[in-house]
Amino acid sequence: MAAMTYTLVLLRHGESEWNAKNLFTGWVDVPLSAKGRAEAVHGGELIAESGVLPDVVHTSLLRRAISTAGVALDTADRHWIPVRRSWRLNERHYGALQGKDKKATLAEFGEEQFMTWRRSFDVPPPAIEAGSEFSQDADPRYADLGDELPATECLKDVIARFLPYWEQSIVPDLQDGKTVLVAAHGNSLRALVKHLDGISDDDIVGLNIPTGQPLVYRLDEDLKPTVPGGEYLDPVAAKAAAEAVANQGR
Amino acid sequence: MAAMTYTLVLLRHGESEWNAKNLFTGWVDVPLSAKGRAEAVHGGELIAESGVLPDVVHTSLLRRAISTAGVALDTADRHWIPVRRSWRLNERHYGALQGKDKKATLAEFGEEQFMTWRRSFDVPPPAIEAGSEFSQDADPRYADLGDELPATECLKDVIARFLPYWEQSIVPDLQDGKTVLVAAHGNSLRALVKHLDGISDDDIVGLNIPTGQPLVYRLDEDLKPTVPGGEYLDPVAAKAAAEAVANQGR
Repeated sequence: MAAMTYTLVLLRHGESEWNAKNLFTGWVDVPLSAKGRAEAVHGGELIAESGVLPDVVHTSLLRRAISTAGVALDTADRHWIPVRRSWRLNERHYGALQGKDKKATLAEFGEEQFMTWRRSFDVPPPAIEAGSEFSQDADPRYADLGDELPATECLKDVIARFLPYWEQSIVPDLQDGKTVLVAAHGNSLRALVKHLDGISDDDIVGLNIPTGQPLVYRLDEDLKPTVPGGEYLDPVAAKAAAEAVANQGR
Repeated sequence: MAAMTYTLVLLRHGESEWNAKNLFTGWVDVPLSAKGRAEAVHGGELIAESGVLPDVVHTSLLRRAISTAGVALDTADRHWIPVRRSWRLNERHYGALQGKDKKATLAEFGEEQFMTWRRSFDVPPPAIEAGSEFSQDADPRYADLGDELPATECLKDVIARFLPYWEQSIVPDLQDGKTVLVAAHGNSLRALVKHLDGISDDDIVGLNIPTGQPLVYRLDEDLKPTVPGGEYLDPVAAKAAAEAVANQGR
């Protein structure tokens, strides 16, 4: 008899309207672009063809992940499964950079500072000013967070707020034998992949997760990947898409 | 100090592709038409303008209700609220009529039989044949239902399977002080309205709930409506839409 494995599917949302405009987004709740919706449809087609059908979906509180989940699951005829949402799956909070143009920020602050903000493990951008246009202080969806509401985050911060949700909400679904879809963001998925594959603080910042490409992990009883790094449903397209992500903002 | 009231918002899905084709739908999982999506957007606009903002949404397992909820909540900037789904909010199962043309059925069986199937309180259509094209025997979303999976339903049957969900899932959300959106179907919402307003078995069959028109009930401590029949956010449009529904299939 084959050993029991748990099945986890990761899906990073596709292009948003601000990805298309090359703005830092973070917790600003922008919609998918038409291209991003098409990516979600394609992700759903890959899921349907693979037969790795989710029994439950976890999303962030941001519409680019919520729409990606909705469109992909509708395409795969799994729109009816239970939905769970948490701010702990949100993208990294980009602090004072939220709403700023990436190219202009690169020109203003230079390559080194720009790459530190984008890719440092433990240096967050400057905090966003309370009450400013792109802050989330007054957003009702975060009203219960109190002091936990971030004003900026580095990847280390994302990991710290993501892991309790992994343990308390996602792992129980896996242990119930459910195939779990996590529809989320570049950095919250990076936090998950770092945890699963035991990637170092230095190496995780160079790992790029492609958009719209379902990534399947089969986990053993100790929740360790049976295949390190998981398996993309479309490995060739995923590799090309990851390289495109790495060159964003250049 | 004003007495505590609970707030419940009902929203019937808009036109589906089979409404547009004038086919009996029931549990067949057809998508919204473009008009139906526009109705959902408009419903969401009315909700946003009213300020009666849902804290949680309950839907059926059918994509025309799921999409209506998703589109309306996205429009009202409430796409991030918790979602609960149940087959107990599904449309009435139309038995062997599922997939049949309404006009052709009227011509074949005559006005009296047609209206009995459409509007009788306790006479269901003939049962659908197991394994036939439009039956749900093999549908994974109903795999756990066992003997509860219907092969046809009258309104009385819908009420019987809806009420346990009302008591066990919707009422607790109301009693938590949440504004609850129920995005569902003509007959599951009719079951709810009958229960809330104490409408007789004879009278409920003549009550038509318009599509895409948010209907707000404020309930007292005993879960009785403070205004019988509730209040539409757009009463003039709701009245016209209800009349259009009454004339369907003619």
